[in-house]
Amino acid sequence: MKVSRKIQDIRLSIRKISDMASAVPGCIRFDIGQPDFRTPKNIQDAAIKAIKDGSHGYTPIVGIPPLRQAVADYEKTKGFEVTKENIMITTGGMGAIFTTLLGFLEPGDEIIFPDPTWPPYKLMASSVGGVPKLVPYFNAGGSLDTGAIEKAITPKTKFLLVNTPENPTGRIIEKKELKAIAQIAEDKNIMIISDEVYDRILFDGNTHTSIRRYAPDNTIIINSVSKTYAMTGWRLGWLVAEKDTVDQLLKCNRASVACPNTISQYAALEALTGPQDSVKKMVAEYQERKDLIVKMMDSMGWDYILPRGALYTFPKACKDSWKYSKDLIEKAKVSVVPGLPCGPKSEGYVRFCFGSANTEQIKEGFERIQKFEG
Amino acid sequence: MKVSRKIQDIRLSIRKISDMASAVPGCIRFDIGQPDFRTPKNIQDAAIKAIKDGSHGYTPIVGIPPLRQAVADYEKTKGFEVTKENIMITTGGMGAIFTTLLGFLEPGDEIIFPDPTWPPYKLMASSVGGVPKLVPYFNAGGSLDTGAIEKAITPKTKFLLVNTPENPTGRIIEKKELKAIAQIAEDKNIMIISDEVYDRILFDGNTHTSIRRYAPDNTIIINSVSKTYAMTGWRLGWLVAEKDTVDQLLKCNRASVACPNTISQYAALEALTGPQDSVKKMVAEYQERKDLIVKMMDSMGWDYILPRGALYTFPKACKDSWKYSKDLIEKAKVSVVPGLPCGPKSEGYVRFCFGSANTEQIKEGFERIQKFEG
Repeated sequence: MKVSRKIQDIRLSIRKISDMASAVPGCIRFDIGQPDFRTPKNIQDAAIKAIKDGSHGYTPIVGIPPLRQAVADYEKTKGFEVTKENIMITTGGMGAIFTTLLGFLEPGDEIIFPDPTWPPYKLMASSVGGVPKLVPYFNAGGSLDTGAIEKAITPKTKFLLVNTPENPTGRIIEKKELKAIAQIAEDKNIMIISDEVYDRILFDGNTHTSIRRYAPDNTIIINSVSKTYAMTGWRLGWLVAEKDTVDQLLKCNRASVACPNTISQYAALEALTGPQDSVKKMVAEYQERKDLIVKMMDSMGWDYILPRGALYTFPKACKDSWKYSKDLIEKAKVSVVPGLPCGPKSEGYVRFCFGSANTEQIKEGFERIQKFEG
Repeated sequence: MKVSRKIQDIRLSIRKISDMASAVPGCIRFDIGQPDFRTPKNIQDAAIKAIKDGSHGYTPIVGIPPLRQAVADYEKTKGFEVTKENIMITTGGMGAIFTTLLGFLEPGDEIIFPDPTWPPYKLMASSVGGVPKLVPYFNAGGSLDTGAIEKAITPKTKFLLVNTPENPTGRIIEKKELKAIAQIAEDKNIMIISDEVYDRILFDGNTHTSIRRYAPDNTIIINSVSKTYAMTGWRLGWLVAEKDTVDQLLKCNRASVACPNTISQYAALEALTGPQDSVKKMVAEYQERKDLIVKMMDSMGWDYILPRGALYTFPKACKDSWKYSKDLIEKAKVSVVPGLPCGPKSEGYVRFCFGSANTEQIKEGFERIQKFEG
């Protein structure tokens, strides 16, 4: 017996690149989308304490109350009311998005993603029978194209996804742009999924704004400790939604994972409520890496959106992004992610992640690319 | 906007009981479906080591290779060939079942569960658009009713679920019964989900047989460390399937949770490869509890299937299982799970879990029930 057509049709395209890169010793890895830092010591200690204290059983489906409260306290600093009833703890930020899509989408329902997008969004939508539609939210000049977004909306559209700071571009969406997107969602009565997992990784004094400020009833926020605290393997995230929505979506958590990992919940509690100096240190390091990579891209003469947050940059570096990415691994021992899986308008671009490449590696990587390009 | 009809229609019925019981101080809890033991020390130590060693990042979607190997080594002791390519590590046993259903079911596809069944199976099937069908696999005399199973199969049937040792009855399905079910699956070209999470919790010298021995190409085994090693909160399970199936189902893991929790994977590796004496000790304690609860049920004059494994017993104790369960909490401070959510044929039955109730509590609990029944 075969898996369903929708699952068969899914291609884990980026995985090919990481498999290829893993097989090349000494390859400089700009394809890995996670921090190379360890989880800060205070958080490790909190997890160890939870283990020693015997926190080994199931928790409530929506997470332990103190963590829900800590998340609410954090999210409300964005300028709106949030109580712990609005919070559902999930198995990573991906768990939060998946749970939302599983909960809301009927087969054939559409969800609008930006082009360029983070490719797993498409996978998540398809896996539950949804139809991803990729739309360039911004035109070539960098202005928000509300017309393009409105045109893509049909009676089948359930969600519009907003990701700021954005993977793969490093873009921060401006307040007035967020307001305009929020207005579209309210006018057309569709929901916004606001992926804010990079909300603390900001460069050059930039600040983060959540679109929930402008569409409080229509927005579900996705967030996690993965990137901010270098905790990707702990699989701990959350969503912020209306209480009624949380009460419904918890059924999806129950069905898919029973409850979030107990020890990771105690670790996340310490992450959010303990000292935050390690976040500052990591972001300072990412800032150095970003500054260097921008300098290197300039020396290449590439076009790119200036990264103002997140861990990525997405320059126009070639014509055929798959060929370029494969050649780069084989001939230059440098791995990047091809742009094409990020959307049809993203051909010719490649994604560099500087989350796992330090300044030494960035220098060496670009030397190799320069040599490769001759 | 509202969540999809299929999610709205899901009722988390048993949760009402645990919410009620939690609100009653001193309530003796037979409703909690998890062990009251701590995770053994050697496993805790392995997790702490993984934390200190910096195992904080993503792992392969299907899990770390040594854990896949350890699982394969364990599962093949059941009498068939298994390599690590047949293993996908998941977010608990529930994650393994959910991933399987998400991967295979098209909307409207049917899945056959035994009546009585573990209610979350229905929830998992419904959440991905499947149609659960509850069928009494065994007749009143305790014989396998192959006719009833065959009659329930339609062209829409994708799966038949087998759970041995069984929740909620404690039943062990015999080899010849497993063979007969396997034959039906092969004849009708449907798949078997074999939930074997209680395969190590066996009483009175009983042994476990996997139905995969009789339908190797048609069976997906579900298993986890949750019950065997008192690790429910660690959310770590696996499935055993054909390599091609694993290669497809990993997309569902990717979509729903990215990868299994990293630290839990190292903990599970120690669980499977380290000393097993703690399992023996826990099972010996469960055996005492089972023996006592059987004695107490006999003194009540209840009908029940003798539990030969797992952590449950499912006596016929009343007429209206919801009314009885609620009254028992309110008037006797004892909580059990009503039978009705386990299937229409299960009305009048209630489930006792002795995973979290020790012999003292079992004695006290039945004294209260006897007083309540007058």
